[in-house]
Amino acid sequence: MPQERRFYLEDIPLEEAWRRFTAALEAAGLLEPFSGEPVGLGEALGRVTAEAVWAALSSPGYHASAMDGYAVRSRDTAGAMETAPKRLKIGPEAQAQYVDTGDPLPAWADAVIMIEQTQRIPEHEGRGSIEILAAVAPGTAVRSMGEDMVATELVLPANHLLRPVDLGAVAGCGHTALSVRRKPRVAIIPTGTELVTVEQAAENGLQAGDIIEYNSLVLAAQVREWGGEPTRVPIVVDDYERIKAAVLEAAATHDLVIVNAGASAGSEDFTANIVQDVGTLLVHGVAVRPGHPVILGMIGTPATDGAAASGGASPPGRRATPIIGAPGYPVSCALASEIFVEPLLSRWLGRPARQKDRVLAAITRKILSPTGDDEWVRVTVGRVGERTVAAPLSRGAGVITSLVRADGIVHIPRFVEGLEAGQDVTVELYRNRHDIDRTIVHIGSHDLCLDLLAQFLADAGRRFSSANAGSLGGLLAVGRGDAHFAGSHLLDPQTGEYNLSYIAKYLPGLPVVLVNLVYREQGLIIAPGNPRGINGLADLSRDDVRYVNRQRGAGTRVLLDYHLENLGIAPAQVQGYAREEFTHLAVAVAVQSGAADCGMGIAAAAKALGLDFIPFAQERYDLVIPRVFYESELLQPLLAIIRGGGFARSVDALSGYDTSSMGIVMAELG
Amino acid sequence: MPQERRFYLEDIPLEEAWRRFTAALEAAGLLEPFSGEPVGLGEALGRVTAEAVWAALSSPGYHASAMDGYAVRSRDTAGAMETAPKRLKIGPEAQAQYVDTGDPLPAWADAVIMIEQTQRIPEHEGRGSIEILAAVAPGTAVRSMGEDMVATELVLPANHLLRPVDLGAVAGCGHTALSVRRKPRVAIIPTGTELVTVEQAAENGLQAGDIIEYNSLVLAAQVREWGGEPTRVPIVVDDYERIKAAVLEAAATHDLVIVNAGASAGSEDFTANIVQDVGTLLVHGVAVRPGHPVILGMIGTPATDGAAASGGASPPGRRATPIIGAPGYPVSCALASEIFVEPLLSRWLGRPARQKDRVLAAITRKILSPTGDDEWVRVTVGRVGERTVAAPLSRGAGVITSLVRADGIVHIPRFVEGLEAGQDVTVELYRNRHDIDRTIVHIGSHDLCLDLLAQFLADAGRRFSSANAGSLGGLLAVGRGDAHFAGSHLLDPQTGEYNLSYIAKYLPGLPVVLVNLVYREQGLIIAPGNPRGINGLADLSRDDVRYVNRQRGAGTRVLLDYHLENLGIAPAQVQGYAREEFTHLAVAVAVQSGAADCGMGIAAAAKALGLDFIPFAQERYDLVIPRVFYESELLQPLLAIIRGGGFARSVDALSGYDTSSMGIVMAELG
Repeated sequence: MPQERRFYLEDIPLEEAWRRFTAALEAAGLLEPFSGEPVGLGEALGRVTAEAVWAALSSPGYHASAMDGYAVRSRDTAGAMETAPKRLKIGPEAQAQYVDTGDPLPAWADAVIMIEQTQRIPEHEGRGSIEILAAVAPGTAVRSMGEDMVATELVLPANHLLRPVDLGAVAGCGHTALSVRRKPRVAIIPTGTELVTVEQAAENGLQAGDIIEYNSLVLAAQVREWGGEPTRVPIVVDDYERIKAAVLEAAATHDLVIVNAGASAGSEDFTANIVQDVGTLLVHGVAVRPGHPVILGMIGTPATDGAAASGGASPPGRRATPIIGAPGYPVSCALASEIFVEPLLSRWLGRPARQKDRVLAAITRKILSPTGDDEWVRVTVGRVGERTVAAPLSRGAGVITSLVRADGIVHIPRFVEGLEAGQDVTVELYRNRHDIDRTIVHIGSHDLCLDLLAQFLADAGRRFSSANAGSLGGLLAVGRGDAHFAGSHLLDPQTGEYNLSYIAKYLPGLPVVLVNLVYREQGLIIAPGNPRGINGLADLSRDDVRYVNRQRGAGTRVLLDYHLENLGIAPAQVQGYAREEFTHLAVAVAVQSGAADCGMGIAAAAKALGLDFIPFAQERYDLVIPRVFYESELLQPLLAIIRGGGFARSVDALSGYDTSSMGIVMAELG
Repeated sequence: MPQERRFYLEDIPLEEAWRRFTAALEAAGLLEPFSGEPVGLGEALGRVTAEAVWAALSSPGYHASAMDGYAVRSRDTAGAMETAPKRLKIGPEAQAQYVDTGDPLPAWADAVIMIEQTQRIPEHEGRGSIEILAAVAPGTAVRSMGEDMVATELVLPANHLLRPVDLGAVAGCGHTALSVRRKPRVAIIPTGTELVTVEQAAENGLQAGDIIEYNSLVLAAQVREWGGEPTRVPIVVDDYERIKAAVLEAAATHDLVIVNAGASAGSEDFTANIVQDVGTLLVHGVAVRPGHPVILGMIGTPATDGAAASGGASPPGRRATPIIGAPGYPVSCALASEIFVEPLLSRWLGRPARQKDRVLAAITRKILSPTGDDEWVRVTVGRVGERTVAAPLSRGAGVITSLVRADGIVHIPRFVEGLEAGQDVTVELYRNRHDIDRTIVHIGSHDLCLDLLAQFLADAGRRFSSANAGSLGGLLAVGRGDAHFAGSHLLDPQTGEYNLSYIAKYLPGLPVVLVNLVYREQGLIIAPGNPRGINGLADLSRDDVRYVNRQRGAGTRVLLDYHLENLGIAPAQVQGYAREEFTHLAVAVAVQSGAADCGMGIAAAAKALGLDFIPFAQERYDLVIPRVFYESELLQPLLAIIRGGGFARSVDALSGYDTSSMGIVMAELG
């Protein structure tokens, strides 16, 4: 009876959740920076100073020569000129003594004359003298004692993140070690009977219902990156007592416990109950997306309302331990960790919370956002001419690749209903601006060889950001200035020509270069062995054939509609016509999984997943490139790649491509 | 006979030096990215992919429920409305089956209806049914197989720096490990008879001529930060054969050898000869500052001109090993490493060379630069109102603290003679912009309690950048908008008042708040026990008393001149009047080292170095703060600190301060 046990999530605004959490931490004395521990300079890189460093020694510790040359008394050099050189006797306690850079100045000397300005004169008594061509002022070419650091001076403040040069300064003023903030220890407990390790998955394969557990891997890497020391606890099955035991054990030896997941309100979501059982449940459900089912609590703290808390959680003498229940969806989990874990670790390390670099960008399409929630939208960012554009990625909380591809995130605050297309937004960047500047932005039709192209571009020092919007969507994006080019394979049924009439219609007046990428085979992707006995498009009208379609505006959809019309088949006759996927591979997956019997797509997608394929057309896939970008330095590596042989050979190794025209200019328009 | 052995440094432009180096590396096949080595996902953070990662499994691997709810056939839900709910029977193979988030969809189902939109109805046969209030479309609340990643799809390109979310994606598509670039092994050989380890220095103290060796510490930390694996070789004394042996041993097991230093042209600078002896000397002396004496070479490569290279350097089957002779001065060494080592390591890791974030800023003072050299000037950077300002730091190649304090560097290219004050320059930032935005910029008079203030500000989330320009220099800087405030203690001899008349004269019309920081004792800093028998300023005219002065514009200099005039002593009568130092501590060091017998300064500086002190005046040290900054959010922590008790107590613990007026507004002007 699952739903009897469930209770509903709260919907607490982010600030209120954070306020409750920090208030509880403060009450437990857990909001102060950690105390220091000594660490040798060789291990101190990236740590944070717990105390200020004051110079123990002066540097240099004596008056030192700043040059290779002769130490002299400046008054002995008075009057020396090129036309009237002066001679000085060499030797200790004489008038000139040779010194290397860094040598101490003799007590009688007050300046150094560099060796290039002297001439050595051998003399009978074996010691010799020098001839100097210029006078020097007192202090010339001398590094005064303490020039760099004077003993007792401040060298580094506390709460300073140690960089390589800092270590040099600390050593240079006489310290062999320094006091750094202890690394916060964070236990990460993955829970869930459905979870398998990636090692198990690689060895035994996945059963339906198995989920590869990798949130703990991401959380541990985040904690490490943020200066903490993570412990990954082995997966705990959905069992109240076992999870409770794991939580108590972790809390006894860690500064923070993260449970993942069980934070929702499903039949086996125990985390909130356990937190109530062994401590105080402060928050269950925060109005953020992705990331709604977040739990914040304290273990071993007496509950303020007396309702919960056994009290036994806290070992003698130990203070309370904060606990965070992170959502199960990987994107929610990673973002919840950024929102709640990072600021806490920074606090403990005595540092301000990390701030991402920000950039203003135009959002490429309208986004609706629930008014009650703070929402974070993942975007790719590129510089397209003078514009900086941010293209929203999948908002699915389960799509970890959307975070991998994201160049940044856009925060849509609570009470804001969404964003208009073209609106300026502030993007918090995951990459530095330089990476953004070397990004080539593609919006348009999807083809598998774009993945290969990304790889070749990476080798050539370019990043490739590609969004699948269909051929028509790509042309419109290029017209708006949202992309550097569009991949397009739009057939004009009137002329039998590709792309030209569409460009004329949708990009009037824009100078454009049309470059061929490939010719490719389109056809029907079907299950291996063709169990439904499908022979061609005519079979789409059959009652027992379920089709999977591409989205409106996709070239493949245009092609289907063209052929259906020729065959006299109405869309309503095609079962599954309304089911839309956005890529060839997604269509292939629908067939592979049995969700559909066939779908239209390219041969390479069928081959990639081991499916059968009924070819029925070769079509042209071109790149539509505005002339201004065609001639830009940014795109030259792209053109070089599609005109060099290596990329074409890699594409030939896939199925169903003809690369003989790759890189050839098909037309110049506008 | 030192200078017989010397040979002059070349003056090779940076691009030419880099061209020669890369040409030699290319000829030896050493310019390609390193091959991959397998690494488990738990150890892969921060490494660089050597190969593209393609999905091994689809994720999700099955059609999964995206919600807690009931799996249904969408057609069974048709027509359901709030006013006309529909009933569905519960159970496997029935009309509705309960699923948790992530559970696989039953084969007969094509949608999920979330639990909140259902109502459970118990029924007699024990199974029950649900009532639904709305119809659902096919695919509702279903995560399609492959929604995140489809097997065979590109997940990460090669040469990708691995972040936490990347590891999740790699695990999620079925990989337990991945191939990352091998870490470049870099040997760092410190050479020099004058060098001592910091451990030796801490244990035995420093003798005159001893230099604490810390360049290898900085180089090793840089190498680690840039993705390499450093080896710090113990210090080698200046002995040709021993250094040669160390170089050959390191070259046999490392990808790069860095020798530090011996790269100059002094009497014991062996590095260039050794490189010629065991390989090819490509470059000796690069026209960059700081960093001139740089050596670039290859060990074990036959010399192209047949002049050098014993050939025996290269073990059988081993390729050549690049060698870099880094300059001895710490700033030169660290910057030469940024210029030559970092791009090479990035190349080997398959990454573009690191690019610092850039910002435009106004340089605060004129800088002359030798036209023949590329020069890098260290600067602090701050946001002062609407302006971003860059203040040059010490250009001394031995002043490592100038790199510690630097927020960035400004490149003055070859053939450019320098920078004009106020000119816009591009700063390559060592810190992120957020750190710059939270920086309070002080230019003005030096006082020891500013060090303490920096510490208190750090605890309050502010960075403190302080440049010693003297009181007058500070007022002028505030007038130009280069600083948020100036510390000033300018006595007006006419009125006996501090600062007011100077502000009226130098900051006319600028609304300013004058806040007291401290009263402090000024006097003569003298050697312990007063060996010269100095009693007061009148003794400065004595022949046997050497004075050390402060720079023009310093309040202390103004005070001295005022008193000298009262005493009828002309500057020419004061021995050492022309010798200028910029801080109280520098004056104290001059006395401590015996370079001078006395100097004027504050009691705290004398006490810090254990010197004696003859007080003769209490003076007022104020903060001159433009009203716009006085009221800014940025400066509120500063005002809170000087008005809270903690900072005043810390200052009281120093010598010669009166904090009773700290934080009090002395005047509001303009």
